Amino acid sequence: MNQSTKHNRRLVLASRPTGAPSNDNFRLEQTDIPKPADGQVLLRTVFLSLDPYMRGRMSDAPSYAEPVAIDDVMVGGTVNRVVESKLEGFSAGDWVLSYTCGWQDYALSDGTMLINLGTGPTHPSLALGLLGMPGFTAYMGLLDIGAPKEGETLVVAAATGPVGATVGQIGKLKGCRVVGVAGGPEKCDFAVKELGFDTCIDHYADDFDQQLAAACGDGIDVYFENVGGKVFDGVLPLLNTKARIPVCGLVARYNATELPEGPDRLSLLMGTILTKRLKVQGFIIFDDYGYRYDEFYQQMSRWYADGKIKYREQVVDGLEQAPEAFAGMLEGKNFGKLVVRVGEDD
Amino acid sequence: MNQSTKHNRRLVLASRPTGAPSNDNFRLEQTDIPKPADGQVLLRTVFLSLDPYMRGRMSDAPSYAEPVAIDDVMVGGTVNRVVESKLEGFSAGDWVLSYTCGWQDYALSDGTMLINLGTGPTHPSLALGLLGMPGFTAYMGLLDIGAPKEGETLVVAAATGPVGATVGQIGKLKGCRVVGVAGGPEKCDFAVKELGFDTCIDHYADDFDQQLAAACGDGIDVYFENVGGKVFDGVLPLLNTKARIPVCGLVARYNATELPEGPDRLSLLMGTILTKRLKVQGFIIFDDYGYRYDEFYQQMSRWYADGKIKYREQVVDGLEQAPEAFAGMLEGKNFGKLVVRVGEDD
Repeated sequence: MNQSTKHNRRLVLASRPTGAPSNDNFRLEQTDIPKPADGQVLLRTVFLSLDPYMRGRMSDAPSYAEPVAIDDVMVGGTVNRVVESKLEGFSAGDWVLSYTCGWQDYALSDGTMLINLGTGPTHPSLALGLLGMPGFTAYMGLLDIGAPKEGETLVVAAATGPVGATVGQIGKLKGCRVVGVAGGPEKCDFAVKELGFDTCIDHYADDFDQQLAAACGDGIDVYFENVGGKVFDGVLPLLNTKARIPVCGLVARYNATELPEGPDRLSLLMGTILTKRLKVQGFIIFDDYGYRYDEFYQQMSRWYADGKIKYREQVVDGLEQAPEAFAGMLEGKNFGKLVVRVGEDD
Repeated sequence: MNQSTKHNRRLVLASRPTGAPSNDNFRLEQTDIPKPADGQVLLRTVFLSLDPYMRGRMSDAPSYAEPVAIDDVMVGGTVNRVVESKLEGFSAGDWVLSYTCGWQDYALSDGTMLINLGTGPTHPSLALGLLGMPGFTAYMGLLDIGAPKEGETLVVAAATGPVGATVGQIGKLKGCRVVGVAGGPEKCDFAVKELGFDTCIDHYADDFDQQLAAACGDGIDVYFENVGGKVFDGVLPLLNTKARIPVCGLVARYNATELPEGPDRLSLLMGTILTKRLKVQGFIIFDDYGYRYDEFYQQMSRWYADGKIKYREQVVDGLEQAPEAFAGMLEGKNFGKLVVRVGEDD
């Protein structure tokens, strides 16, 4: 069932997942295409971004953002084209980045959280990755909280994901020794050969902790935390005095339904923060750093144009594939920034 | 056995404690009084500071400072008088603050970690408390890491101790609502009536968590962490988005021999750091902020002289009382900054 000009397809949250999400948690529906009123635009989705944070929105546990309501359209960033505009500043044919459309073909917008990308961006889906939330997260988290210095050791997991890959490449630009962590030899090879990481450890290896320790002979000065779980367990004893840990995600934990068995290491973590004088800081990119988006956009566009930062994308075709692709991403099955091609580019 | 002019008494570390320290971990010895060579001064101890961090120095577990060696004199800050000087800048009779003398009557110094307090400081022991390490810890940890804003809620434990009392009073000067935590009604009364805290919760209360929650109706914006344990457990669910947690001590844990039973809340803490965008940062006062000591000293002296910051001291008489007073402090038995009067002021 492809995108049509006759009706709207949308994926709504059918039920809240317990543990890993499955297809049953989503429901594909068909509705009419809405008509824009004065002050509105009608958007048609071309690309939908799939990101780990969406798992949090499917739950009603307390978090930094409201959960998606049952029967509501799933949230997400999209790159769209304007079909019809009754809103100043937008014309039919414009490319836009929207954070209110979500997992569907068509939506109205009054301009809230809508960015005009012009009539002919060279690579429209970059706005969902390197030049959007993941790239911005990597940039501010690493540079503002991580504050890497030349010669320091930086560790980042999900090394071929859109955040991790960008973190590691910025780390190299800043003169760090960069140690990646990724799932499987193919991703590890890519991190080293294509992205220029110094080394990359396969977290599926039985001796992961030992390999990580061997790769970090001078300890770890910056750990960019985007996964949690056993990677953090391996990192914790290797942290140097005054190490910095920006925390932007804990994918390994998103599907967890209860706390792991003991012993209770909360006091171990607090004790390590004290004795090693660590800085551990969580952030939500647009809430904390929205005012620096322009700076980031200029710098990252330049790095990308100059070939200093590379970017890998995995495109899945068809809105109906989104639930399965999303569940796979939470297990690390994607390779590069995951986007769904919902409609044609034309 | 009082301080003598004929010999030196010293307390050495006899054995490393398992759990809480006892008198058996210390040994009182008598030695000759040393003679200063050129470039040295001979110091006589008047006041010895007892502080929680010393528990860490008695263990050989990895930490931010070298452990005291078995049979070595216990470390600690002291206020001394110069008996004889062969070092430029120091004269017989001068008052000094030393961090190399430790738990004994007499010691030589070559000027390392030795601060001249002049011939007649009005309140010499303040250099061990309000104007020394504890006061400086409170000042920098709260103002630099905690960054309290007017109208915010600040929580601090050990509310009548030298760090906690100072943190809370600075918090009031900055316009915060200040909630203290202390052990027993007498200390809680003191925090409210003498120090001006808005309220103070007794951590011995069975319904401590409920009382804390009731006292923090708008949540917690700054938690100054100097104790850990169950106070932190009560604080964690009350933290507001963007709360700051300076970590300068975890007294509740210093005597622990193993981690508590599960579940393992490490991921809970990391998850809270992420979803609430917390900043949790450890610091060691002179290592991290030594270069700002003068600023602190000027400001705090002025606040104290103006009666804006109050300070309570508990003086124990006699070097031989130090081990028991120290063990009692780790259990919260002291009331105010604990110092030992080792010798006479004259």
